[in-house]
Amino acid sequence: MRPQRVIRRKRDGGELTREEIAFFVRGVTTGGWADYQASALLMAIFLNGMSAAEQQALTEEMLRSGEVLDFSSVPRPKADKHSTGGVGDKTSLILAPLAASCGVAVPMISGRGLGHTGGTLDKLESIPGYRIDLHLAEFRSVMERVGFAMTGQTGEVAPADKILYALRDATETVESIPLIVASIMSKKLAAGLDALVLDVKTGSGAFMRDEGRARELARALVATGNSCGVRTEALITDMSQPLGRAVGNALEVEECLDIMRGDASEATRPVRELSLELAARMVALSGVAENLEAARERVTTALESGEALECFRRNVEAQGGDAGVCDEPASLRDLTLDEVRVESPRAGFVGRVDAAEVGRAVASIGGGRVRMDDRVDPAVGYLAEARVGDRVAEGQVLGLFCCRGAADAEEAAARILAAYEITEGAPSAVPELFREVIDD
Amino acid sequence: MRPQRVIRRKRDGGELTREEIAFFVRGVTTGGWADYQASALLMAIFLNGMSAAEQQALTEEMLRSGEVLDFSSVPRPKADKHSTGGVGDKTSLILAPLAASCGVAVPMISGRGLGHTGGTLDKLESIPGYRIDLHLAEFRSVMERVGFAMTGQTGEVAPADKILYALRDATETVESIPLIVASIMSKKLAAGLDALVLDVKTGSGAFMRDEGRARELARALVATGNSCGVRTEALITDMSQPLGRAVGNALEVEECLDIMRGDASEATRPVRELSLELAARMVALSGVAENLEAARERVTTALESGEALECFRRNVEAQGGDAGVCDEPASLRDLTLDEVRVESPRAGFVGRVDAAEVGRAVASIGGGRVRMDDRVDPAVGYLAEARVGDRVAEGQVLGLFCCRGAADAEEAAARILAAYEITEGAPSAVPELFREVIDD
Repeated sequence: MRPQRVIRRKRDGGELTREEIAFFVRGVTTGGWADYQASALLMAIFLNGMSAAEQQALTEEMLRSGEVLDFSSVPRPKADKHSTGGVGDKTSLILAPLAASCGVAVPMISGRGLGHTGGTLDKLESIPGYRIDLHLAEFRSVMERVGFAMTGQTGEVAPADKILYALRDATETVESIPLIVASIMSKKLAAGLDALVLDVKTGSGAFMRDEGRARELARALVATGNSCGVRTEALITDMSQPLGRAVGNALEVEECLDIMRGDASEATRPVRELSLELAARMVALSGVAENLEAARERVTTALESGEALECFRRNVEAQGGDAGVCDEPASLRDLTLDEVRVESPRAGFVGRVDAAEVGRAVASIGGGRVRMDDRVDPAVGYLAEARVGDRVAEGQVLGLFCCRGAADAEEAAARILAAYEITEGAPSAVPELFREVIDD
Repeated sequence: MRPQRVIRRKRDGGELTREEIAFFVRGVTTGGWADYQASALLMAIFLNGMSAAEQQALTEEMLRSGEVLDFSSVPRPKADKHSTGGVGDKTSLILAPLAASCGVAVPMISGRGLGHTGGTLDKLESIPGYRIDLHLAEFRSVMERVGFAMTGQTGEVAPADKILYALRDATETVESIPLIVASIMSKKLAAGLDALVLDVKTGSGAFMRDEGRARELARALVATGNSCGVRTEALITDMSQPLGRAVGNALEVEECLDIMRGDASEATRPVRELSLELAARMVALSGVAENLEAARERVTTALESGEALECFRRNVEAQGGDAGVCDEPASLRDLTLDEVRVESPRAGFVGRVDAAEVGRAVASIGGGRVRMDDRVDPAVGYLAEARVGDRVAEGQVLGLFCCRGAADAEEAAARILAAYEITEGAPSAVPELFREVIDD
């Protein structure tokens, strides 16, 4: 077989066979395909699409290109969550201990933040001493003892994805649903899951701003997950403003601990509600609870009783972190930081927020990465005080910008201010957190 | 500007600006674009097409990527012909002296044969001593003294085309009309022409087998030539069987010399007629004759009077060849060759010929190239005796296969025989040589 044959078939709108897709993935990993041949096929896939069978085959072949973790010795059902990424999106830190408290094993392999979106690994690293580089044996051991473990990529998971992602990034073929699906699912499935819940974001801070495209992606992800033998569901949720209060690594961990310690304020409500719902679906989908209603009750109890906090504490201890943060979340704050107030220039309503711009402003002062090799300052960030639909007075604080030195910060704060649209009248509709459930 | 921006625009079906196309061509030539970015754009062009303005810009920028010959010191108008390639397609050797005899300067830069198609350079090299590696000064001098000169590529003509062609070949993006147009026209226009006549072949031995696609290509070539300031016309002509009698380098030169010496047989008629028509259009388009009718009369006179033969003789002498072949074309025959008769297995009619298969059979015994670095045996080839529509008796000779040693030859002769379809009744239509004129 030659790469040309495969390229030609997709170029002409045909359906690739499992054998052709396997040949492509193997060729990309071992060098049998030149990168210019791979990128030509990627563009043909971008423009001509892929059938459900092709997406399944591509996902499975990319999965097979690397190591697949074997957790068959762990008796509990394994479940995980994947989010398409957003601003202030910190639910993993709450839902993992919630689901684990209910009897699910959560082998969570996470990533770093880039651009306007954050990453779970960066958040965890703001806990002093917390290790996110567990070996496979440690990872398995923490999961067995605590119920959940969190780490960066262990071993060579889906190496084909790394190569293809770099090519897609250089050739404007990132935003192809079949390619996104295979990239996400090949990595997630490498953790040997029984169930997977997807949080597909939509709105100004999401990768898929458009709700129709988000729905299309969610459907393709769910179909592929199920066809690969993993019970999969997706929620489409709002990312038209930062999720909850904090944007910035240590500030987000603090917010999560506050919630696990019983904070029930309006500012953190979206994080609490979304974490509970995602965890409940993981529990239900794993078969640990009888149905979704029962699962919701169990995760709510786990949160309110403090079980989730204790589970999180055991995880921090097991992964080498300072568990004292569980008792004093505010100890994560760096008191040497400057706080710049972002004030509403006039009376009115918060009509709209460009969430991506808020994320970029935080990244610009070191709270995230503009490039993959940037160092992150865990302490800096933004605390949103007003949400879309809130009535604000002139000079009222929209949020607090926590930064090091006021020079760059003034510019970044001005950027954040510009991301807010203050309207005279109330916005006609306030975005709903939960948009849709995709379960088949 | 970044390559990604250009790729994205074409990916989304937009029209590239002149600046973006120049950036692409420069980037491909100087390394500013990675080859995987270039191939992604090539696939996007293949699938989303290019406007007339984009084709003109791509042609001109590829032309500018290399040397452009300056023949402004040559007082005669400059004209050339380009054929999309075929089997037994030898008209260049006749039309160049014909047009030159009528007052046109013909700076002909030709290529080698590959696969089932032949190349003018290979044919010329079968004349003992003939040099096809003229320096620019020699090339100009021969053209000035003789009226036409023939050589391989001089200097670095359109280096972007070489790089892009290699990428297209590896990524199944060869058969894209805008890319074919830019590739052909950037090289032809580098010879500083006033007029260009295109011979776009259609049928079983053509690059564009389908007549609709051939028409589409012809229209795009003519539009681009004219918009680049070169008066351009195209003929769509038949390549559903080998053109004329001979396929194979020395045999084809012999056929051309026979025609220039007055041969008016039925077997060579298509070569004679097509050469006359193409030359007449070069003469008319150059403005040397008042109109096409006058040009046809002049080239016919040049052929019948022997002027063309004398012009050809002067060229052979000027380019170092043995001009004796002009007096004794049969001296080009290698008498040590075996002749294998290809006989009709039954009585009936020649219904169809797979011309490409005939070309490949000749290439397989050394008469052409399977790969670009193959050596060519100038003497071997095939002489077709029967044409589509001819009535044949059982055992009648369809053609003669001239080869070295009978071993491989039997297999190749069997291949040729299989390329003929002998039908019981006469074919409903015999393919017309001239299909269509595209002149705007």
